[in-house]
Amino acid sequence: MYRTHHCGELRQSDVGKEIKMAGWVQTVRKFGSITFVDLRDRYGVTQLLFGEQLTKRLDENPLGREFVLQVNGRVAERTSKNAHLSTGDIEIDVSSYSILNKSATPPFTIQDETDGGEDLRMKYRYLDLRRNELKKNIELRYAVNRAARNYLHENNFIDIETPFLIKSTPEGARDFVVPSRMNAGQFYALPQSPQTFKQLLMVSGYDRYFQVVKCFRDEDLRADRQPEFTQIDCEMSFVEQEDILEMFEGMIKYIFKQVKGIDYAENVERMSWEQAMWDYGNDKPDIRFGMKITNLKSPFKKDGKIEAVGELINGAGFGVFENAETVLALNLKNAGSYTRSQLDELTDWVKRPQIGMQGLVNIRYQKDGSFKSSVDKFYNTEKLKSIAASCKAEPGDLILLLAGREERTRKAIAELRLELGERSGFRKKNEFKLLWVFDFPLFEYSEDDSSPGSIGRWVARHHPFTAPKPADIEIMINNNPAIENAATYLEHPYSGIKANAYDMVLNGNEIGGGSIRIFQRELQEKMFEALGMSKEEAMHKFGFLLGAFEYGAPPHGGIAFGFDRLCAILGGSESIRDFIAFPKNNSGRDMMLDAPSPIDEKQLKELSIRLA
Amino acid sequence: MYRTHHCGELRQSDVGKEIKMAGWVQTVRKFGSITFVDLRDRYGVTQLLFGEQLTKRLDENPLGREFVLQVNGRVAERTSKNAHLSTGDIEIDVSSYSILNKSATPPFTIQDETDGGEDLRMKYRYLDLRRNELKKNIELRYAVNRAARNYLHENNFIDIETPFLIKSTPEGARDFVVPSRMNAGQFYALPQSPQTFKQLLMVSGYDRYFQVVKCFRDEDLRADRQPEFTQIDCEMSFVEQEDILEMFEGMIKYIFKQVKGIDYAENVERMSWEQAMWDYGNDKPDIRFGMKITNLKSPFKKDGKIEAVGELINGAGFGVFENAETVLALNLKNAGSYTRSQLDELTDWVKRPQIGMQGLVNIRYQKDGSFKSSVDKFYNTEKLKSIAASCKAEPGDLILLLAGREERTRKAIAELRLELGERSGFRKKNEFKLLWVFDFPLFEYSEDDSSPGSIGRWVARHHPFTAPKPADIEIMINNNPAIENAATYLEHPYSGIKANAYDMVLNGNEIGGGSIRIFQRELQEKMFEALGMSKEEAMHKFGFLLGAFEYGAPPHGGIAFGFDRLCAILGGSESIRDFIAFPKNNSGRDMMLDAPSPIDEKQLKELSIRLA
Repeated sequence: MYRTHHCGELRQSDVGKEIKMAGWVQTVRKFGSITFVDLRDRYGVTQLLFGEQLTKRLDENPLGREFVLQVNGRVAERTSKNAHLSTGDIEIDVSSYSILNKSATPPFTIQDETDGGEDLRMKYRYLDLRRNELKKNIELRYAVNRAARNYLHENNFIDIETPFLIKSTPEGARDFVVPSRMNAGQFYALPQSPQTFKQLLMVSGYDRYFQVVKCFRDEDLRADRQPEFTQIDCEMSFVEQEDILEMFEGMIKYIFKQVKGIDYAENVERMSWEQAMWDYGNDKPDIRFGMKITNLKSPFKKDGKIEAVGELINGAGFGVFENAETVLALNLKNAGSYTRSQLDELTDWVKRPQIGMQGLVNIRYQKDGSFKSSVDKFYNTEKLKSIAASCKAEPGDLILLLAGREERTRKAIAELRLELGERSGFRKKNEFKLLWVFDFPLFEYSEDDSSPGSIGRWVARHHPFTAPKPADIEIMINNNPAIENAATYLEHPYSGIKANAYDMVLNGNEIGGGSIRIFQRELQEKMFEALGMSKEEAMHKFGFLLGAFEYGAPPHGGIAFGFDRLCAILGGSESIRDFIAFPKNNSGRDMMLDAPSPIDEKQLKELSIRLA
Repeated sequence: MYRTHHCGELRQSDVGKEIKMAGWVQTVRKFGSITFVDLRDRYGVTQLLFGEQLTKRLDENPLGREFVLQVNGRVAERTSKNAHLSTGDIEIDVSSYSILNKSATPPFTIQDETDGGEDLRMKYRYLDLRRNELKKNIELRYAVNRAARNYLHENNFIDIETPFLIKSTPEGARDFVVPSRMNAGQFYALPQSPQTFKQLLMVSGYDRYFQVVKCFRDEDLRADRQPEFTQIDCEMSFVEQEDILEMFEGMIKYIFKQVKGIDYAENVERMSWEQAMWDYGNDKPDIRFGMKITNLKSPFKKDGKIEAVGELINGAGFGVFENAETVLALNLKNAGSYTRSQLDELTDWVKRPQIGMQGLVNIRYQKDGSFKSSVDKFYNTEKLKSIAASCKAEPGDLILLLAGREERTRKAIAELRLELGERSGFRKKNEFKLLWVFDFPLFEYSEDDSSPGSIGRWVARHHPFTAPKPADIEIMINNNPAIENAATYLEHPYSGIKANAYDMVLNGNEIGGGSIRIFQRELQEKMFEALGMSKEEAMHKFGFLLGAFEYGAPPHGGIAFGFDRLCAILGGSESIRDFIAFPKNNSGRDMMLDAPSPIDEKQLKELSIRLA
């Protein structure tokens, strides 16, 4: 037996006990003829005292950092206690020890603040994982996993494993594929999600399913995306949207309580997609702070009608606004006294390629009620006052305006809002604000990328199994999805169809998304047709699902949470990589394993493939 | 809201309540002007009563089997109660209903005893999963999963996810590989197990790890093997074999208690590999019954010496025994009166190609103390009495003897023992007997398959990370693994090295296996050398692990349980397929999805591969 106690366990009340302990040498401090060693393991640090005789032995064969040590000894009360340490009242008076393994000097320091660069730490991930910060992340991840499982278990969900070697049905993202040796020329695919399987389980009558499951997407990696990622994947039968929102609002609150000790008592806010786009410029607003957008001019439709027509700003001869499709404003409170250089810096910020705007118009509402503005010569004081009023600005505030094409401008102002919120200290790591967003459009218009200018097609905003809102089912069934004229696609009945879908947003991040699913064969076939799939293609790819809908499919719906992201946010971090034990880098490589890598000719031959 | 209660919930005490319920139509029985419907869901069956008015509506639009129905109504006491049903005291007096979905007639009956063949049921797996038997299996699987997690959680284990896209390092079984689009010509592999990752986690200091995790092996599928399978994978630091046996004996007992309600109070039996081979002929004996083998003649070594030299049977002139390497016997109690035709049938059984023996010798010990034997003319009564005594046979018993080459004969008698045990009713589905087997050989001698007769090599019996028993480490380090002479490989010091490994056996099935691992770079390098790996190859494949051992690797060990198999045995079944929601068939195909399948030219091109 290597140990009777771990390094975080012993207290004053254990004084006098004979114990065994094992762990890593954190520090070695020699004081004259005796030596103190801090011994570390997963649970904590315990001070070891080596007396004169043992210190002589240590002098001959010194301990180094990260050596693995096993000691026998007696628990003793410390003369100088350390109140910062849970074991700070005691030390181990070592009677004998053995070095279980030596350690070379690590390539970076294993401390909270390390000197190792990212690449080095990825290569030696097993050492980086020793650092307290990563350990806390990995432990938090397990705590979230455990809490989610416990909640779902209590609510009658059962964990059912779905297969990893499935069929390639590329829709949107690319599949990773796996050549089959036993079926030459054929391939499995790794699942992008267990979507169709969980729906089949609903058809089978397992009315509450979950899985904490790996999913795979062969995408060009953006920062902080991983080719393999984990979902908390859930599905329920005999439910409407409201049932799902309540169930999973409950789950997230339970996780908050269990993992962070936070009582999230209030109801989770709810917002339609249109409202989110209108007020915040994107569909996952960070509502820890206000700073809503003022829509001075926009073609954006709410409830089927255009709400902002630009009356306030058109007609003044300012070409940038006159010619812009969209003009949006933010009111930055108490920033009316910003200097020229501060404003220039903000202008540069919106001109960065990631934001891509041409410029930033500002209106400084002075404390005395007067205005200073970059568009003084086009707008008189009365006009500026009206603009300020529509932005709910008061003397002392700064109004920032962006103009341009609708989509880009809205995206840019959403980014600017987040940036200003960040700079203003509104985005606090330890404040958590949940939000449900729903009533997304079911379809998006996609330009035909094979021949520019030609008629495009509908793509599913979520996925092809998402049901329309009940009121829109008739519209979907009774109309021809074909787009006759690309210019007027917005007038096509399909453009107004809303999805029976919902996203859960936490602090400006989408942490979960789901929908009520189609469960009737006729409607599912109509959906595939709308997405430009022939009957044959639909049968080839999803015949099993269409078949299943023939045999008594119940109404059902579900949700999937991005587990990596959820953990990162709960841990107060932006980087999912710090919450994955063995992540890949931005090129999809495992730096530690050096994978992917070439394989043998023999393997290729067995798989009946060649390199192209 | 579709339902206020599920179909297994309502009792006498609910009578009078207004409820909503949804589920599947199990049966429809019309009695005159009223109709009874059994409504089924995951939780049970509830009887619905449709009165005269509603029955008229049903007459116009009849309900069919497996229709999805939603009803509103009032809970009423039944006039004729059904004691077999948990809801048998009540019925629902239906006030209104709606058909949520229709169902075509299923291709097979959804009953405990179905008329569907295996292929049909695999194709319509979502319907097969509705059957009570499969539902019980899937629920049992979840119960085992949950119990294992709870036990491990209570014992400070944490679930840490390891990657699925890793590096191909084929050792033994073939890897499934995944072409990388972003790294042309390179491949990931799917893990055969998280072995090296869990060892790295030990190096990182996470001293108790577990995962319920999918693993992948591209093997030629034998019956009841799956290309993807699930392990309960565990690893611990600062442990010796005894620590692991105790921890996981505890886990299995906990699972027995939670899932089957069985108090497995006695200590799990323990047996060395040599003892198991000696007494039962294989390394995973079913110890629900005795019927141990008698080794009349064998080159099998125990504790380094040959124990059975054939004194009893040699010299009588019976060529079959004289020339055989091995003669093994079983004593079938109270079968001394077997008829000629019964003995012929057993002889045919051992001659089947799966067993492959030339014949079966029998000695019938008559109730009166005399003998009838197929070898009467070689062995006199005194000799037969001695053989009987060594087999612990008494008057009335039947001794069965097999002779031939050691390996085949031992395997055959092990099979014969199981068959006789089965026929004798000794292998009861609801009796569970656990066994630890340990002290396996570390190496197996493998003939060089590239040139027959040439000098073979050592292969790892378990895997290359298994440590030798502490006493054998010196032997391993201090001897050259090279085999100079194939004929005398048994005399090579490496052939006697024992592994610090252990298997858990349940009712004759290996349900888990593990080992104490090598944690010193020098010993790991020696192991790779012994397995014929060059230094360069070892560094290319496992450089990260050798590197990790440089930085303070702790002593560690672990175990992995075959989750599918464990569930099947606990469920009293031989087939793991019945315990997997969506299994593949024996050709590795998913019959429901029709996968694997060809992929697009575009996909191949993006992956920089071609079909050969």
